Amino acid sequence: MSAAAAAKPILYSYFRSSCSWRVRIALALKGISYDLVPVNLIKDGGQQFSAEFKALNPMQQVPALKIDGITLSQSLAIINYLEETHPNPRLLPQDPKKRAQVRMIADHIASGIQPLQNLSVLKQMGEKKMEWAQNCITSGFQALEQILQHTAGRYCVGDEVSMADLCLVPQVANAERFKVDMGPYPTITRINKALLELEAFKISHPSRQPDTPAELRV
Amino acid sequence: MSAAAAAKPILYSYFRSSCSWRVRIALALKGISYDLVPVNLIKDGGQQFSAEFKALNPMQQVPALKIDGITLSQSLAIINYLEETHPNPRLLPQDPKKRAQVRMIADHIASGIQPLQNLSVLKQMGEKKMEWAQNCITSGFQALEQILQHTAGRYCVGDEVSMADLCLVPQVANAERFKVDMGPYPTITRINKALLELEAFKISHPSRQPDTPAELRV
Repeated sequence: MSAAAAAKPILYSYFRSSCSWRVRIALALKGISYDLVPVNLIKDGGQQFSAEFKALNPMQQVPALKIDGITLSQSLAIINYLEETHPNPRLLPQDPKKRAQVRMIADHIASGIQPLQNLSVLKQMGEKKMEWAQNCITSGFQALEQILQHTAGRYCVGDEVSMADLCLVPQVANAERFKVDMGPYPTITRINKALLELEAFKISHPSRQPDTPAELRV
Repeated sequence: MSAAAAAKPILYSYFRSSCSWRVRIALALKGISYDLVPVNLIKDGGQQFSAEFKALNPMQQVPALKIDGITLSQSLAIINYLEETHPNPRLLPQDPKKRAQVRMIADHIASGIQPLQNLSVLKQMGEKKMEWAQNCITSGFQALEQILQHTAGRYCVGDEVSMADLCLVPQVANAERFKVDMGPYPTITRINKALLELEAFKISHPSRQPDTPAELRV
């Protein structure tokens, strides 16, 4: 094993970033120990814009993961890499149709909801910020609730935790932060609650990170 | 083989939708014949909002693919399903690190650029529509150009066509439609040109679809 491959992975993360949280859950579920480097998206105009971080990740976004001698960004690309290199416990079902359902739900959140209520978009919305975020999440959750009624067991797809669940919980946290009424989404609410009981979701929670401000700690 | 599995796949597509184009390229590359049902995103206030289409895809978006007895949405979830059920020619490299690079680039476009210049977002931008779209694409392409300088061969990652390329070409077409200056992106431009020479990219092109208006046909 090369020195690079043997080194502990380094996760560049922001406690409140929902995309960072997805990766923290995956690392926790798979029992991969890592060092965390906080990148504060607010402080100093956004530490992700520093020359140092840009050299590491031209996308100037968290999360980024240094692992096995490479640096990866994009949360689902990172999670897929972890899935292929650390297959246990699996985050994709064995059946191709069920795998497709997991990916459809994960992408619905990762491409259809989260990017529209991302910090960089909201910054440009000024006073309409809250309303914009609520609209994006509401229309996304309406579709998601309907889909989950077909696919869900205890979790998003059947009874095993999957990539879809890693996207769901952080997105629900965003919805709560933007004061979205969760009443119309009983399936989303039930699954979110079940997932938050799992240790991997607890220890990766934004309220328990090294960079969580004291007043938000639990 | 069940009747459902034996039926020809049906692709719900809009000629100009960049996400639909991604899937049309995948189907063409893998030699999967399919029936196309056009969904006009503009006409009648948007045919994707019809009750009939909503029942098929609660997300009210194209593309959607009926295949093997299920209906899938989200272009990359569909493409991953096709990759797993029709592995030749492969759209993901064998090496996990190279696969991760492909996914990182695909997700950068599918989550980081396209959703922000999507029709539904632009509708809400009014007069600022053009400027908004240009800004989203420009900042995405700046990062992408840097990344491709490390990963590219003839195509986005090495010399084989991958999922990343299926995302790149439709995104460049969007950039051109929004009059983005492509001067600062020589690597993107070179790869796009090489890909557009391939038959699968040609026959799936927006200018050659059953629902392409006469004045836009080539």
